[in-house]
Amino acid sequence: MKIIIVGATGTMGTHLVNVLEKEHEIIKIASNGGDIPTDITATESIENMFKQVGPFDALISTAGPTFVGPWNKLNDATFRKGVEGKMMGQINLVLIGQHYINPKGSFTLITGALTHEPQVNFANASAANGAVEGFVRAAAIELENGIRINAVSPTVIEDSPHYFPYFPGEIPTTMRQLEFMFRKSVFGKVTGHVITP
Amino acid sequence: MKIIIVGATGTMGTHLVNVLEKEHEIIKIASNGGDIPTDITATESIENMFKQVGPFDALISTAGPTFVGPWNKLNDATFRKGVEGKMMGQINLVLIGQHYINPKGSFTLITGALTHEPQVNFANASAANGAVEGFVRAAAIELENGIRINAVSPTVIEDSPHYFPYFPGEIPTTMRQLEFMFRKSVFGKVTGHVITP
Repeated sequence: MKIIIVGATGTMGTHLVNVLEKEHEIIKIASNGGDIPTDITATESIENMFKQVGPFDALISTAGPTFVGPWNKLNDATFRKGVEGKMMGQINLVLIGQHYINPKGSFTLITGALTHEPQVNFANASAANGAVEGFVRAAAIELENGIRINAVSPTVIEDSPHYFPYFPGEIPTTMRQLEFMFRKSVFGKVTGHVITP
Repeated sequence: MKIIIVGATGTMGTHLVNVLEKEHEIIKIASNGGDIPTDITATESIENMFKQVGPFDALISTAGPTFVGPWNKLNDATFRKGVEGKMMGQINLVLIGQHYINPKGSFTLITGALTHEPQVNFANASAANGAVEGFVRAAAIELENGIRINAVSPTVIEDSPHYFPYFPGEIPTTMRQLEFMFRKSVFGKVTGHVITP
């Protein structure tokens, strides 16, 4: 299977590349580095990436820039980081990528527990996650040619312990759980699901 | 109670004005008409509206422009209608309005069943709704001075029968149910809730 991994140089992306490249052709996408440097906040950059990659079977996204910071710094300007990044960046990967993906291919986007379990400092991510999950459910009934779409929604990631203090009481998602959630979406048959640990 | 109703000239807003103005001071906000013409897609217009209104006790929003149309017309440009309108328009009403609202005041935003029950043509609304609901849950743990925030999530509205064909199988929300959902948010004590019929 030819699989595009967006956010390939991050904590989640690096792990997924390592475990999936043993069995599959992996195209690594990141803003810097990777196989094709791509800015997911620019539709031309996304379009150019898909043109270079050509037909593919699955796209996995772990790319989710959002504004993290105190509530009194949250305003229309700072909110845009998550709107353009984790929300529209991922949504545009699907709206554009649907014209390049093979029939029966799949898109798997990243959200997170913040959709339903808010934490202080992360309102921008809660909104972006909610948007992506709503979009995933809607896109699942619109996409044609057997193309599927799901979201993977982990809690705080085991290999990002510097985040633990910001997620009191949240049981971390192990890298193995994360991998298996993506496997369920890519190699299983469900569509329109938000996959949790 | 001094209550701002945004979207005051629409189907939902007109009903809410009629039932609430018997007991409360209502400030009617709409893009055209109303007491203070306001463009919720422009932060300066929102700021100006709050300055004119002065301190208030509750804000109700029924304003939710989104792109409705076939999937093949959905792209980054058309998606922006819901991003700027139902999503950021409503979120900015809160981010800006929190500096004008009285202690123990409340914000009540509008979402809809499309968050979890997608229908063909409405992916933009599903995403905007999901964003607003995620934001509402997160804002509820951040807002200070006892300020509350909730979302009201109706199904298709009884008084908008022209929408019924687009919502097969969905039991309409009556105007009385809609009114009572808003009453629960404004006059009750919950915060961070998504109130359904």
